[in-house]
Amino acid sequence: MTKDPDLGMLSAQVLFALQRELFRRLAEQGHPDLRPRHGAVLAYLDPQGSRATELAYASGQHKQVIGTLIDELEALGYVQRRPDPQDRRAKLVVPTERGLDQLRRSEAILAEIEGGHAADVGAEAYAAFKAVLRRVAARQRGFEIRTGESPPVRGAAVRRGR
Amino acid sequence: MTKDPDLGMLSAQVLFALQRELFRRLAEQGHPDLRPRHGAVLAYLDPQGSRATELAYASGQHKQVIGTLIDELEALGYVQRRPDPQDRRAKLVVPTERGLDQLRRSEAILAEIEGGHAADVGAEAYAAFKAVLRRVAARQRGFEIRTGESPPVRGAAVRRGR
Repeated sequence: MTKDPDLGMLSAQVLFALQRELFRRLAEQGHPDLRPRHGAVLAYLDPQGSRATELAYASGQHKQVIGTLIDELEALGYVQRRPDPQDRRAKLVVPTERGLDQLRRSEAILAEIEGGHAADVGAEAYAAFKAVLRRVAARQRGFEIRTGESPPVRGAAVRRGR
Repeated sequence: MTKDPDLGMLSAQVLFALQRELFRRLAEQGHPDLRPRHGAVLAYLDPQGSRATELAYASGQHKQVIGTLIDELEALGYVQRRPDPQDRRAKLVVPTERGLDQLRRSEAILAEIEGGHAADVGAEAYAAFKAVLRRVAARQRGFEIRTGESPPVRGAAVRRGR
């Protein structure tokens, strides 16, 4: 237990502790039915709607997992599946009013949490940390793309341009 | 999808991409039966043995989850439960030879992955990044300890001193 914690340990500790705080506070603010697993969809959901393939790509989860989460969130009243106006064969996952309320509250809670960390380590150091974290995340995911392990990018690149 | 990625998104992206690379490479090196979920135990396992409560605390997972993972790893031949010589009522989770081989290989793979990131962003920037990540992880988990949401610390503090 004395060895220097590696990147996997630390990212897991940050993620799980952050999820616990976020979902506890969301529960206090009128969203008690959400679970951390739903973050794989909710964190990446475009207020105007996202395709399931985009959500799978953004979250790094398999499309089957995302499909199950969308089913759960639809049953809980957070999202609806609607035909994509740009492609009649495709479906868009669109947040409901309840979903939009959750998106706004999550964003505010996360901004407050990150504000606390930034105040603790200093704004400049925190900005530098986020920049390296973004780069490490892209590089670690890029490794997967090169070896063909990632979910499909199709759709995501197009819509990201909006 | 254009908003600045938050700490939760980025830590999830790093964790899941890192897990995929680690477990793919472990599979190639003779450990095809392990799954990313097993990392919650294996990442924190002391070669001389750890208590389940320590593993729960270190990983931030519930003790029931850790118990199930220990059962699976025992069935796969990676760990054994043995009486703790320091406390006859307690059990220690001890890696087998196969478990020790996995620990050594994981450490080497993670060191290589992190070496790649450090070479990409520069050794000094990467060290600064890790220092802030350690602090953010401790602070985010400290929030839980203050509000009593964390798994029990009992045992961990004692054994960490070894």
